[in-house]
Amino acid sequence: MKIIFASAHDVDPDTWINPLKALIPDAEIHPWVDNGPTIDAQLAIVWNPPADIFLREPALKAVFNLGAGVDAIIKRPGLRDDVAVVRLEDAGMSAQMAEYAVYALVRASRQFDQYEKQQEQQVWQPLPDIQRQKWTVGVMGLGVMGTRVAQTLAGLDYPVAGWSRSAKEIAGVESFSGTDQLPAFLARTRVLINTLPLTAETTGILCLDTLRQLRPGAYLVNVGRGEHLVEADLLALLDAGHISGATLDVFREEPLPQGHPFWQDPRITITPHTAAASLREETIAQVAGNIRRYMRGEPLTGVVVRDRGY
Amino acid sequence: MKIIFASAHDVDPDTWINPLKALIPDAEIHPWVDNGPTIDAQLAIVWNPPADIFLREPALKAVFNLGAGVDAIIKRPGLRDDVAVVRLEDAGMSAQMAEYAVYALVRASRQFDQYEKQQEQQVWQPLPDIQRQKWTVGVMGLGVMGTRVAQTLAGLDYPVAGWSRSAKEIAGVESFSGTDQLPAFLARTRVLINTLPLTAETTGILCLDTLRQLRPGAYLVNVGRGEHLVEADLLALLDAGHISGATLDVFREEPLPQGHPFWQDPRITITPHTAAASLREETIAQVAGNIRRYMRGEPLTGVVVRDRGY
Ligand SMILES: NC(=O)c1ccc[n+]([C@@H]2O[C@H](COP(=O)([O-])OP(=O)(O)OC[C@H]3O[C@@H](n4cnc5c(N)ncnc54)[C@H](OP(=O)(O)O)[C@@H]3O)[C@@H](O)[C@H]2O)c1
Ligand SMILES: NC(=O)c1ccc[n+]([C@@H]2O[C@H](COP(=O)([O-])OP(=O)(O)OC[C@H]3O[C@@H](n4cnc5c(N)ncnc54)[C@H](OP(=O)(O)O)[C@@H]3O)[C@@H](O)[C@H]2O)c1
Repeated sequence: MKIIFASAHDVDPDTWINPLKALIPDAEIHPWVDNGPTIDAQLAIVWNPPADIFLREPALKAVFNLGAGVDAIIKRPGLRDDVAVVRLEDAGMSAQMAEYAVYALVRASRQFDQYEKQQEQQVWQPLPDIQRQKWTVGVMGLGVMGTRVAQTLAGLDYPVAGWSRSAKEIAGVESFSGTDQLPAFLARTRVLINTLPLTAETTGILCLDTLRQLRPGAYLVNVGRGEHLVEADLLALLDAGHISGATLDVFREEPLPQGHPFWQDPRITITPHTAAASLREETIAQVAGNIRRYMRGEPLTGVVVRDRGY
Repeated sequence: MKIIFASAHDVDPDTWINPLKALIPDAEIHPWVDNGPTIDAQLAIVWNPPADIFLREPALKAVFNLGAGVDAIIKRPGLRDDVAVVRLEDAGMSAQMAEYAVYALVRASRQFDQYEKQQEQQVWQPLPDIQRQKWTVGVMGLGVMGTRVAQTLAGLDYPVAGWSRSAKEIAGVESFSGTDQLPAFLARTRVLINTLPLTAETTGILCLDTLRQLRPGAYLVNVGRGEHLVEADLLALLDAGHISGATLDVFREEPLPQGHPFWQDPRITITPHTAAASLREETIAQVAGNIRRYMRGEPLTGVVVRDRGY
C-alpha cells in the first residue's frame, strides 16, 4: 500500500510521516516532491495539496485531509468522482472554535475593548450591564464546529439559534434549516457566527442581501472560509452603521494582502486563519485509524458527500 | 412590616422600591435618607449599605443584600449576631462570571493581544498552537460562581481543578479542599481564577507565598474581592517573570485610585468591578420571594453562616 503525504504548507513531512508509519507499519509513506515522479499511490494524506496532485497520482482511491474543510481539495483538477475525499472530524478543533467564538462575542457584548481604552486613560467607568436578550446569536452551520459553538454559547445563557441544511435538535439551540428559513434566522440574529463549509451553495453567502437582514448593531464572526464573505459588502454595512464590527479569521486571499482595507479598520479584528488548529496527535490517530479501516476493507468515517461538497 | 432600602451606590431607589412593592404589597418600603430618623424597620434591602445602618435601625431582623458578597455588610458596626444576613444567589451573575473567565483565559492562552499588535503592523503570522495540558486552570471557590466558571472551562477542554472548604464532586473538575490541599492545588495550576468570598480566612490569600507556588508563566484572574490580593506581591511576581499577566476586576480601593501602578502596567487588564452584575428582574424576584417567605414564617434561602463569613 503506497501513500503520498503532500502539504503545501511549510511543515516538515517527517514529523507527520514518522508517527504515521509507527501506526501503519504495513504502508509505504512517501513525501510529495515538487516535479517528482508518479509513485502510483493509492492513498494521499494532504493539507492544502499541490495543484497537480490528482493529475500526477491517477491511481488514488482516497485522499485524507488534515483539516475539516475540503474546499481546496475539491478544486484541484483531475479529482475523479470515485475518489473518496475524507475530512478531519474535530481532532481538537471544535473546542478551539467554541472558545474563539466566546472570545469574539464577549469582547463585543461586554465591551472589553472599551474598558481597555478606559484603562489607558485611568478611567474607572462601569458600562451599562448587558441584557442577553439583545445579544441573539446565530450560528451558520451546525456540524462538528457549529454544534459545539452553539452549545457553548447557549451554556452561557445567550439566546442561540443555528442554521443548517437539515433541521437539528440541539438542547438550548433553536433550529432553522434550508434557504426558506434563512430570512427568519437572520432577522432574529445580532451576532452571526459562520462555520459553514465552502461549497457552490455557500460561496458569497455573507453578502449585502443577507447581512442587512441581521438585527441593527450586528456583529459578524467568520471562521468558515474567506470566500463566504463578500468583503466590500461588509465594509459597506459597517460604514452604514448596520454592522458594528467583525472578527475575521479567514479571507479570500491568505495571507491577507498588505494594504487590504481590513487591516487598519478599527471595527475589524483579524486573526491569521488560526481559529482552530487540528491537534497533531489526535489527527494522526484519526487518519491512521481510517487508513487501517481502509486496508481491512471496512467503511471510512468522515467521507465527504461529493455532490454536496462537504 | 417595615422595610428599609439602602444603597450607597448612586441608584434611584424608586426603580427598586416600586417593583418590590408590586410583589410585596403588604410591606411598607422606605428609602434610606442620610441623617434621617429611625423608622424601626424589621428588614433591610441593601447594596454596599451606609456605615450607620445597623446603629440607626436596631430593630432589624434580616438584611437582604443585592449582591453575592456580604463582606461590606458584615463590617458595618452594630450588626447583631441574630440578624440574618442574606446574599443573592446567582441572579444572572454566574453566566457573566463564566464568560468573563473564558475571555480572560482565552485572551492569554490564545494570545489575542499579540494578534492585535500584529494587525496594527499588518503582519500575518500564526502563533504556535496551544496545548491545553499546559493551560491548567485552578478555580478558588466552588460556590455559585466558581462552579459555573469551572464547568464552563472544563467544557472547553481545559484541565480544571477547584479549591473550596469542603470537597466537591463536579464532573470534569478535580477537587481540592482545605488548607492542607492548597499547595497541591497551586502547584498544578497555571491560570488561577479567584471567586472566593472575602472572609477573615481568605483576606490576603493571593500573596507571595501562594502565588509563587503556581506554575511558571502563571496568569491571575481576580473576580473575588480586592482584599484577597496583596497588590505589591503581584507586582513583584510579574517583575520576576513568574506571573505573566493578570486580569483584575476588584481592588483594595475602588475606584482604583489615579496613579495606582496597575493602571499603566501592560501586563494587567483592569475592569471596574463589572465581572458580574446581578440582573434587576431576577434580583427583585429573588429578594421579594425571600421576604414573602419571611412574612409567612418560612425559612429563607441564601442565609450567610455568620461565623464562616459567607
Ligand atoms: N478557521 C478555521 O481555523 C477552521 C477550522 C476548522 C474548520 N473550519 C471551517 O469550518 C467548516 C465546518 O466544519 P465542520 O467540521 O463543522 O463541518 P461539518 O461537520 O460538515 O458541518 C457543516 C455544517 O454546515 C451545514 N451546511 C452545509 N451546506 C449548507 C447549506 N448550503 N445550507 C445550510 N447549511 C449548510 C451542514 O448542514 P447539515 O448538518 O444539514 O448537513 C452542517 O451542519 C469547514 O468546512 C471549514 O471551512 C475553519
Ligand atoms: N466581581 C464581581 O462582579 C463579583 C460578582 C459576584 C460575586 N463576586 C464575589 O464572588 C464571591 C463568591 O460568590 P458565590 O456566590 O460563588 O459564593 P458562594 O456560593 O458562597 O461560594 C463560596 C465558595 O468559596 C469557598 N470558600 C469560602 N471560604 C473558603 C476558605 N476559607 N477556603 C476554601 N474555600 C472557601 C466555599 O467553600 P464551600 O463550598 O466548601 O463552602 C464556596 O465553594 C462573592 O463573595 C463575591 O466576593 C464578585
